[in-house]
Amino acid sequence: MENSSRVYLYDTTLRDGAQTQGVDFSAADKARIARALDALGLDYIEGGWPGANPTDDSFFSNPPDLGQARLAAFGMTRRAGRSANNDPGLNALFAHDAVSVVTMVGKSWDFQVTVALGIELDENLRMIGDSVAHARTRVSEVMLDAEHFFDGYKANPQYALAALRAALDNGARWAVLCDTNGGSLPHEVERIVSEVVAAGISGDRLGVHCHNDTDSAVANSLAAVKAGVRQVQGTINGLGERCGNANLVSIIPNLMLKMGFETGISEEGLKHLVAVSRTLDEVLDRKPNRSQPYVGASAFAHKGGLHVSAVAKDPACYEHVDPARVGNARQIVVSDQAGRSNIVARMADLGIEIESVKRDALVRVVEAMQVDFDPHEVADLVDLIKRLEHEGYAYDTAAASFELLVRRALGQVPDYFTLERYRVIDERRRNAKGDWVTLSEATVKVEVDGREFMQVGEGNGPVHAFDVALRAVLMGAYPELAGLELADYRVRIVESTAGTGAKTRVTIESTDGQGHRWTTVGVHTNVLEASLEALQDSIAYMLFRFREIR
Amino acid sequence: MENSSRVYLYDTTLRDGAQTQGVDFSAADKARIARALDALGLDYIEGGWPGANPTDDSFFSNPPDLGQARLAAFGMTRRAGRSANNDPGLNALFAHDAVSVVTMVGKSWDFQVTVALGIELDENLRMIGDSVAHARTRVSEVMLDAEHFFDGYKANPQYALAALRAALDNGARWAVLCDTNGGSLPHEVERIVSEVVAAGISGDRLGVHCHNDTDSAVANSLAAVKAGVRQVQGTINGLGERCGNANLVSIIPNLMLKMGFETGISEEGLKHLVAVSRTLDEVLDRKPNRSQPYVGASAFAHKGGLHVSAVAKDPACYEHVDPARVGNARQIVVSDQAGRSNIVARMADLGIEIESVKRDALVRVVEAMQVDFDPHEVADLVDLIKRLEHEGYAYDTAAASFELLVRRALGQVPDYFTLERYRVIDERRRNAKGDWVTLSEATVKVEVDGREFMQVGEGNGPVHAFDVALRAVLMGAYPELAGLELADYRVRIVESTAGTGAKTRVTIESTDGQGHRWTTVGVHTNVLEASLEALQDSIAYMLFRFREIR
Repeated sequence: MENSSRVYLYDTTLRDGAQTQGVDFSAADKARIARALDALGLDYIEGGWPGANPTDDSFFSNPPDLGQARLAAFGMTRRAGRSANNDPGLNALFAHDAVSVVTMVGKSWDFQVTVALGIELDENLRMIGDSVAHARTRVSEVMLDAEHFFDGYKANPQYALAALRAALDNGARWAVLCDTNGGSLPHEVERIVSEVVAAGISGDRLGVHCHNDTDSAVANSLAAVKAGVRQVQGTINGLGERCGNANLVSIIPNLMLKMGFETGISEEGLKHLVAVSRTLDEVLDRKPNRSQPYVGASAFAHKGGLHVSAVAKDPACYEHVDPARVGNARQIVVSDQAGRSNIVARMADLGIEIESVKRDALVRVVEAMQVDFDPHEVADLVDLIKRLEHEGYAYDTAAASFELLVRRALGQVPDYFTLERYRVIDERRRNAKGDWVTLSEATVKVEVDGREFMQVGEGNGPVHAFDVALRAVLMGAYPELAGLELADYRVRIVESTAGTGAKTRVTIESTDGQGHRWTTVGVHTNVLEASLEALQDSIAYMLFRFREIR
Repeated sequence: MENSSRVYLYDTTLRDGAQTQGVDFSAADKARIARALDALGLDYIEGGWPGANPTDDSFFSNPPDLGQARLAAFGMTRRAGRSANNDPGLNALFAHDAVSVVTMVGKSWDFQVTVALGIELDENLRMIGDSVAHARTRVSEVMLDAEHFFDGYKANPQYALAALRAALDNGARWAVLCDTNGGSLPHEVERIVSEVVAAGISGDRLGVHCHNDTDSAVANSLAAVKAGVRQVQGTINGLGERCGNANLVSIIPNLMLKMGFETGISEEGLKHLVAVSRTLDEVLDRKPNRSQPYVGASAFAHKGGLHVSAVAKDPACYEHVDPARVGNARQIVVSDQAGRSNIVARMADLGIEIESVKRDALVRVVEAMQVDFDPHEVADLVDLIKRLEHEGYAYDTAAASFELLVRRALGQVPDYFTLERYRVIDERRRNAKGDWVTLSEATVKVEVDGREFMQVGEGNGPVHAFDVALRAVLMGAYPELAGLELADYRVRIVESTAGTGAKTRVTIESTDGQGHRWTTVGVHTNVLEASLEALQDSIAYMLFRFREIR
């Protein structure tokens, strides 16, 4: 019987999750996600499969700085007929200093060994043992992913257990029971894990890795923990091929808020759950799933008339947990009261009282933007934010644009420059030699403190050329802009059914080379106009926030 | 201990599912869905709440012809202070001849009775008993939805049981245990149901109704059945407010194919599962969820290279059930992590042998693209696909571009047109009145069969203008392009740390108005060039694939 209440969380979004159709993380994407996972408080981050995937080698050789999370590399046991020393695929896993943990997958289902691999059962056990022992001489922690463990145990329990012992007896810290084809149900997982523990393998050496093919991956993971397992593998938002991997975003609050387990995540860290979920959606350019448990926009939204008055009396009537604990908020769809409390809270974070924003100031701010609604119909700041979000402005991620909007309404932000006009030209033609020449050129004219400046820039494309020209033209008046870097630039069509005429949302993440990062947003049918809006906000925010510091 | 293996299935898509934000079924929608549910083989269809919702009265007064399914009306017990005879809300439930089953919701959590309703505990029990007894004189079957049952049982088990008995002792066929706020976990459900059965209430009088707030609704339902419950309520695709209702589409195959239970669904009927799921998506105008267990397009799709060769040897290696049993099919997907076998299989689907692609043909195809590697280093087609994917070409989603690439290498695709040159101009300036004017204009020059054509187009932005001009200029030579529509246009930065100079991937989904859909891709640092590549492929594919058909 396991007494320990500490469960270790192992994220494989960047490896198993990456196997999803349509998912292709760049090394930079992986770094961004890894930072978010580390900030949340996860124990292990499986970064990829070095040697098998060029992007993964790139990621591991230039990894992000992590705090508590340990970086794991995934791979296979040595191949049959080679020694662990001489298996290049295996040894590629140890090529990077940043990797302190190696997770190797090995067969634990006899049928797989004889049919899929075509080798003797004993040879497979030696492959596992040799590989783990060899890996222990190269990295500080090794674990086995026992592939198809539950099917393997049902078919030949002794062999499946032997596979686990082959790893654990040779120095593996963990043996992870994988429901590789996702076909198990919770009562089976609970029974099998209990038997494994009863057979003498301690739960604090066991992990579980489930897939969602029966829509039970979360329940299977919890059942395994209940039966003694102390490591849970999964992905953010359940990303994964077929029906997905076990969704850590659901598992974490279930373990911590309902089942009383501890993880590496603090109470404060848990409030980042919504943000981590959204970060992955943003990297993948996916619309967040409103119905996602715990973190979805609708997760605490009450519509049915029966419920709303009861919630007003006592939220415990209808809410199973306090949404604030995971960084979410209650939403009453009928009266939209939650919209208010979110925004009021956010403004309080900025030190601003919502009453101090006057309606005529809001009208002026909106008139400077290009929107589809009448600025004079705006009731108050809350109403304005909702309308802008309906237009496509994603203020939950673009915090700097949110702050600028509010502060502009309060008259706190100077006009750093006025864009007089611009022209961007893209051309592809053949030069005298008959070769293709592609050209993007932008000219920009701005006014700063009554003086006009004009500049031209070239780039890889229209937006790049525009960005080059705009920053060049402002450098004279604001030399600190030399430190401004665009860390991330995302384009998203916000109404995708209108083909190429749809509204575009451009989100920019900027840094100043001094450790500050901020995100701004622009929305327009014309991607240049949307980029301009986001760039202007980025520049204005840098000057507003950080000027005094220099 | 329940011996019966027959589980009754109760669908509440049209009532509880209809409470979802953004869902509004017409009576005709309800009729269509009800017919599909009946054809599948469900036992009960909860059509709505007569008297509370005009659409529902409309539906019940003109119901579709059903075979085995019984039509149920949902409502509340009589209100406090009224007799069952004199409660108009209650009696509205009996207004329609088509309704042979009435399901009424009543409180079973003492806290809810005293706080939300503000009445005595005994009065609530009388409300339940009276209402059930009265309903039994009006319809042939009555059941109680015991609201908040699991929270109620945890708080005051005797009261919760008393609520069930109040219904069952007065003639209710079923008492349904509802996890109304969705906060329960499977082990709690199993324990509580076991205790209810142990307290003397037979499992064959018990139902379960779960919500997905802990991502465990399916598992909770199965746990309840395991503990003795013999009716399961849920919705198609888990439709429902907040995080959704228990998903019958997952529950049904779990019960029938894995747990050995019988339902009203035959083996043949079960093959309609995919169709029923898609029907609801179509009525709601929602994109089907590719990752949905059992019925999703990706539910049986294998991407990871490790898996695919094994599946080819024996599907049981990697599939938890035969997809055909639920009307689904296996899918092999190409991508970065796929080995030879994926690509070979995909080419086989196209009727092409991988050996027939010659290296010099590959070099020619690559030279026509803009890539960062030396075409002469390409070993074979598999190597080429991997290199292109590393460049950003997402061939697992852009199947048409994949096919064109392969067929071009085989010399099977004619040059439909040659782009001679283009120029795109974006300008923002003030007009004579001082107002901002934004302008995007594109000129395009092409050669078709030795003749040159030139055209200009305007648009909301540079890409839109370009698309307008390109299609206009080709319409003369290829009038069928008039039917070409861009259904979806996505832009993705594939290396997001390079700011605005990063490589862009443009993915386009096209239709021809004749039911054909195809996806193409383009990659370039210049978003116009990337769009051009994807557009050219879209046009070429339409002409190549569908020309002969006209």
